[in-house]
Amino acid sequence: MRSYIHRRAVLTGLLTSAATTLFFKTTALAQGNPLPSWKDGKARQSILDFVAAVTREGSPGFVPVPQRVAAFGNDGTLWCEHPMYVQLAFALDQVKAMAPEHPEWKKKQPFKAVLDGDMKALAAAGQRGLVEIIMATHADMSTADFERAVTDWLSKARHPRFKRPYTELVYQPMLELMAYLRANGFRTYIVSGGGIEFMRPWTERVYGIPPAQVVGSSIKTKFMLRRDIPILLRLPQINFVDDGPGKPVGINAHIGQRPICAFGNSDGDLEMLQWTTKGASTPCLALIVHHTDGEREYAYDRQTHFGKLDKALDAAKINNWTVASMKDDWARIFPFE
Amino acid sequence: MRSYIHRRAVLTGLLTSAATTLFFKTTALAQGNPLPSWKDGKARQSILDFVAAVTREGSPGFVPVPQRVAAFGNDGTLWCEHPMYVQLAFALDQVKAMAPEHPEWKKKQPFKAVLDGDMKALAAAGQRGLVEIIMATHADMSTADFERAVTDWLSKARHPRFKRPYTELVYQPMLELMAYLRANGFRTYIVSGGGIEFMRPWTERVYGIPPAQVVGSSIKTKFMLRRDIPILLRLPQINFVDDGPGKPVGINAHIGQRPICAFGNSDGDLEMLQWTTKGASTPCLALIVHHTDGEREYAYDRQTHFGKLDKALDAAKINNWTVASMKDDWARIFPFE
Repeated sequence: MRSYIHRRAVLTGLLTSAATTLFFKTTALAQGNPLPSWKDGKARQSILDFVAAVTREGSPGFVPVPQRVAAFGNDGTLWCEHPMYVQLAFALDQVKAMAPEHPEWKKKQPFKAVLDGDMKALAAAGQRGLVEIIMATHADMSTADFERAVTDWLSKARHPRFKRPYTELVYQPMLELMAYLRANGFRTYIVSGGGIEFMRPWTERVYGIPPAQVVGSSIKTKFMLRRDIPILLRLPQINFVDDGPGKPVGINAHIGQRPICAFGNSDGDLEMLQWTTKGASTPCLALIVHHTDGEREYAYDRQTHFGKLDKALDAAKINNWTVASMKDDWARIFPFE
Repeated sequence: MRSYIHRRAVLTGLLTSAATTLFFKTTALAQGNPLPSWKDGKARQSILDFVAAVTREGSPGFVPVPQRVAAFGNDGTLWCEHPMYVQLAFALDQVKAMAPEHPEWKKKQPFKAVLDGDMKALAAAGQRGLVEIIMATHADMSTADFERAVTDWLSKARHPRFKRPYTELVYQPMLELMAYLRANGFRTYIVSGGGIEFMRPWTERVYGIPPAQVVGSSIKTKFMLRRDIPILLRLPQINFVDDGPGKPVGINAHIGQRPICAFGNSDGDLEMLQWTTKGASTPCLALIVHHTDGEREYAYDRQTHFGKLDKALDAAKINNWTVASMKDDWARIFPFE
């Protein structure tokens, strides 16, 4: 599958992400030990030190509440992105679900490959094939219809290894971190390469992040009246790719402020971490979730199709960013453990 | 100037808006009589009835706080848009300020027309001429530099008739309305054809609306490192026109929820008002500010270069939207009166 995963910038334009939350539970936890699933160590300490620095009134590092903006990647930072991006799993399942209305797909690539479960042929169809699949499954319907499709699918789909809804495969330490930041006056935003309308239907329930605080990739939409009722029709055209250098652009467009802390896990987060920390006038924090635990989750970094972490790992060393090892820094990975 | 004002959809892509606030004062006022600058009448009553309906717990029209989204146009709805959009006045002044660095402009249209104060020649340059002016004054600089330019200009510029900063030419009844809605659990958003980055530097101070709650037109930006410091460079390319049918698209992209009330004053607001009201599953409110007071402000509707109100005025009758007459419904127009 290498060929079509390679250029994540375009791909994840439309591919992404999903998670059941212990949101209320973590909110309560935030009162005592705010990060119970984080082991003592440099990563946990860097978070505590940062929050202490920006919230201590009268101190030189103090940051007023309206400027406390935190940005989180989604795939691989807040929820599991292996063995493939959740939004890609959604797209492949949608092709199967829509196949009866498209008898021609039985003979037409890349759809035939999906229907036959032939991942090799799918990879051969390359990036263009993938965009075809995305457009066929994500466009030519209203935003309301798409939301229903996402919600229906998430309620039924199960992760192939963990046999649970994708929305349960969220990282408990990150839920605690988001709750801790919010308890300290931060607004938490998702800034993901995944599709904005793929995430919004469930981020409030799963992460406590409302629709207006989700930034993501998008396709174009068009306003129209259908039988005198207004709809937004999703068009088969890419609008914005919120990945790599697109992340600071998306942050600026949606939030209009620079985050003072950002959390990612892949090279797609590099520019967001730079935008958050380089030349910052206040204390700031950049943290990379490093997938080091093949036993409890997955182990990958420089060599992977989904969530490649290479340049950003080198940049972390140079820029003194925090790298959190899932194996060493997280006592618990998933809420259900 | 008709030729280049005609297609507002493209023009205001980059043109817009500003306002000094009695924001704290109005917040206080919201406790007793919430709308002191609104005269008794159908317009004021429609607002009170709507807010009562959606906030009465247990009633069939009750709307939970997270869904209480209110959308406001800016030019002509929150602040004065005559004799021309404030952002256009900014652009023309910027041409003059930048002229020393561009000696060629003395002989080159449409810049020559601006420098000579020759509005006839400027009109003759048409829409293309205006786009040239916008690109020359709004692009090829960082977002931080543009913000500084806007803030500097607003601190010095004066409205030609009222001789006051543009940010003082905001409508007192609308400030009260926004404060009243916020006091009742609403989030207030600006959804304007004007430039998003032209508005954000001052909307918090003037209206109490933070940057993340401003939706507007935009040009493309590009992330880059300049001497190892990240910047967003404003490119001379239109990204999004948040006007007419673009307003529901912008609302969906930024807010991800449908407003339950919307406030406008021109045909550029028509689709936003439709999106808010037609087929709504909760009580909703659409209100049009009708500029009927040539004495205290300006009187215009179907025939004007800025803020044309024609189709939306007809639609108001058909859809039972509220039309507020500035002359008859507003006891006071500006905070300084």
